[in-house]
Amino acid sequence: MALNALETLKTLVSFPSVSTDSKYKPALLQTKDFLVTSLQSIRFETEAIETELHPIVIAERKVKGDAPTVVIYGHYDVQPEDPIELWDTSPFEATVKGDRIYGRGAADNKGPVAVILAAVSKLLEEQPDLPLNLKFMLEGEEEIGSPSFKPVLEKYKDRLKGDFLLACDTGSQKSDQIVVTAGLRGITCFEFKLKGPNKDLHSGIYGGAVLNPIKALVDICHSLHNEDGSVNVPGFYDDVLPVEEWERGELKKLGIDLDEYQKFLGVPGFFEQKGLTPLEATRYAPTLEYNGVWGGYQGEGSKTIIPSEASVKISCRLVAKQDPDKIQDLVIQTIKDRCPEGVSIEFTKDHNGTAYLVVPPEKPNTPADLNPVLADAFKLTDALSSELFGKPALYMREGGSIPIINDIKEILDLDSLLIGLYLPEDGYHAPNESFSLEMMEKGQVMIERLLTGVAAGD
Amino acid sequence: MALNALETLKTLVSFPSVSTDSKYKPALLQTKDFLVTSLQSIRFETEAIETELHPIVIAERKVKGDAPTVVIYGHYDVQPEDPIELWDTSPFEATVKGDRIYGRGAADNKGPVAVILAAVSKLLEEQPDLPLNLKFMLEGEEEIGSPSFKPVLEKYKDRLKGDFLLACDTGSQKSDQIVVTAGLRGITCFEFKLKGPNKDLHSGIYGGAVLNPIKALVDICHSLHNEDGSVNVPGFYDDVLPVEEWERGELKKLGIDLDEYQKFLGVPGFFEQKGLTPLEATRYAPTLEYNGVWGGYQGEGSKTIIPSEASVKISCRLVAKQDPDKIQDLVIQTIKDRCPEGVSIEFTKDHNGTAYLVVPPEKPNTPADLNPVLADAFKLTDALSSELFGKPALYMREGGSIPIINDIKEILDLDSLLIGLYLPEDGYHAPNESFSLEMMEKGQVMIERLLTGVAAGD
Repeated sequence: MALNALETLKTLVSFPSVSTDSKYKPALLQTKDFLVTSLQSIRFETEAIETELHPIVIAERKVKGDAPTVVIYGHYDVQPEDPIELWDTSPFEATVKGDRIYGRGAADNKGPVAVILAAVSKLLEEQPDLPLNLKFMLEGEEEIGSPSFKPVLEKYKDRLKGDFLLACDTGSQKSDQIVVTAGLRGITCFEFKLKGPNKDLHSGIYGGAVLNPIKALVDICHSLHNEDGSVNVPGFYDDVLPVEEWERGELKKLGIDLDEYQKFLGVPGFFEQKGLTPLEATRYAPTLEYNGVWGGYQGEGSKTIIPSEASVKISCRLVAKQDPDKIQDLVIQTIKDRCPEGVSIEFTKDHNGTAYLVVPPEKPNTPADLNPVLADAFKLTDALSSELFGKPALYMREGGSIPIINDIKEILDLDSLLIGLYLPEDGYHAPNESFSLEMMEKGQVMIERLLTGVAAGD
Repeated sequence: MALNALETLKTLVSFPSVSTDSKYKPALLQTKDFLVTSLQSIRFETEAIETELHPIVIAERKVKGDAPTVVIYGHYDVQPEDPIELWDTSPFEATVKGDRIYGRGAADNKGPVAVILAAVSKLLEEQPDLPLNLKFMLEGEEEIGSPSFKPVLEKYKDRLKGDFLLACDTGSQKSDQIVVTAGLRGITCFEFKLKGPNKDLHSGIYGGAVLNPIKALVDICHSLHNEDGSVNVPGFYDDVLPVEEWERGELKKLGIDLDEYQKFLGVPGFFEQKGLTPLEATRYAPTLEYNGVWGGYQGEGSKTIIPSEASVKISCRLVAKQDPDKIQDLVIQTIKDRCPEGVSIEFTKDHNGTAYLVVPPEKPNTPADLNPVLADAFKLTDALSSELFGKPALYMREGGSIPIINDIKEILDLDSLLIGLYLPEDGYHAPNESFSLEMMEKGQVMIERLLTGVAAGD
């Protein structure tokens, strides 16, 4: 019996598969069992791979002879339902209201997983001999940083080979404009602490003799940006891939209104960076951001001390082809070089992630070695976008980081086709998460016809 | 019967007169009663003035005919005894060990109060007709900022008039070098908060478009000092009285070893300010210090946000003749002028205090209108210091602020003779607070002979 997207999604939502909360472990196992059964019902060879936390479902359809191979990624875990009091419906009981279905995970990522399962199911029912190898990897730890994913990739890398990866865990700006995510920023995170006097000092008795660690911190941090908004760390931009004209064009076609964007963010103004609009900067430029700062007295009123310490957390978003280890070293060395004598400095390094970029075909910067099956899939995506959604897809680099996409590239040598089925109004991670029934329906047709086309070598 | 300094101090220490803790209210009343009885026993007309918190003891000895008037200040409240586990003796049971007496308040300020009471008692026993008016003001709220003191000064200002104020609530560097505090820094405190986006933003999706409030904060704060360490606020130094050569000389005579000072503070180096040594800067220069800073994520690991807000607490130590209201306005206006467009700014003003300065006689900058009784008292102090402690007194401006000294100047028009009886090793405010028996003994002789001299018009 074919899998129906809406019914599959309803069942998936009914399992509270919150990966971060161990009390929901049984629900994660139920979700895993349901996925295994569903994939077996459409004749996939299916296995649940145990990890230290939540299992990864791997399923495979192999055909005889030469055929392209599409590897499909999704995740079955969800964000916590809190704050529960802000939900209008029960978060773990999928509810259709108007043209949307509500429930935790309805969008992220159970809706798209149900769409792909239904598309594959329908396709194989109609064309049981379709010359296409299909592999699924459905994990249960995406919302907690996928700690088990990379080791499993390493272990099963021969079994997971293919032509490209297909995933629908990204967004499109509007329901008439499909966005394909063609790039993701990398990241490097660390913090440093400046130590001055061995204890907080009386600012009257000692003020003037001692370098205040907060002053040292503001001086160092001020030096990390130039007047034009760029990062003032020697070598920081050395490996940055420039933004292409066609990329600026895609962004313009997206048609985001800066005034509305400003209102949405609630900011009095934008950050100005030389040669880049605010929207370009979030996608095509690296950043150096302060994520937190602290030191001294933070309570009510005044406490007239020279604090003993001051600390700041820094993260840099990186673009292709910046190496996060190299950038972390550069920034840390620069800060060390600029640290004044009156304080000592201590660094704590945190996680790094590499930026990802895939360039669709027929662009000035399309690499010669772009997988031809993926190249065809890009073209098909364009054609299907035009036909089903009214416009060709836009190929956008995004500002965020999805480390597993880069892991898949590095370990499996697979580039990704990331088709955005989320809409801004889905409110994923928030109360009253929902998924558009229109995107569900059109998305299913799109995936079905995309895979048909890939199989046919169109 | 004459009052004995050691016995008086032992009784005073036995009352846990911690002004900040309402459970000790009965002990404060006991201390007040003991002081009233003691002063009455030496025939002072004594009154305990009720306040909203702890009473102020006012006592008076009036003589017939013209005579100089010395107003004596002290306080009978103490700091909390915490951390109690670090005390080697019971904090509220005075214990003599070696050449010191241990107990909370032994130094600050019960020891010096006992010394003055004993000196006055002995003096009046020996010279019952001494031509000298004496007034005591002993408050119970010094350790909590003297909230009732100024209103009482205002109300009783006719009764509290005199030639000068005598207090022993300051320190000397060594037991063979009496320091007279001739100046205190003023202060102005405020904080500001920068608001960027209306909530914390994902640093990937929005990083590059939005001005990070922590970046705005480090830029503004960096601008508040010049490269040479001076404060970069237009007009900040306009009213600053220069440091005189004789003041630099006094400081040199104090003979503080910079290496030892650095070791004591535990700092890797000093703050360099143009034209001033670290020790000069703490006494003769105004400062702009950061007392606390906070914003964004401060927990373990990383949280890749652009924080919505960032805040900093600032205090400026001021020197004569800087007006704290004027300086607060100048600094706040400068910060407003330098606030970038991408954030909004909010100020919270905190307390202000005016700097104090009295110049002893025969200096190039001695004012013509220095009270002649005080001028004589300064000279006597020098002579007595030489005789009793081996060296003439040093007249030092101190870096801290004692707002009541300025209130006394403004309301009663009294300058102060502040004779330091504390030594660095007393550890006031800390566990195992103690007072030197040598300073007690010599201090009593000094006060006795000083008052004798003042009465004689020496």
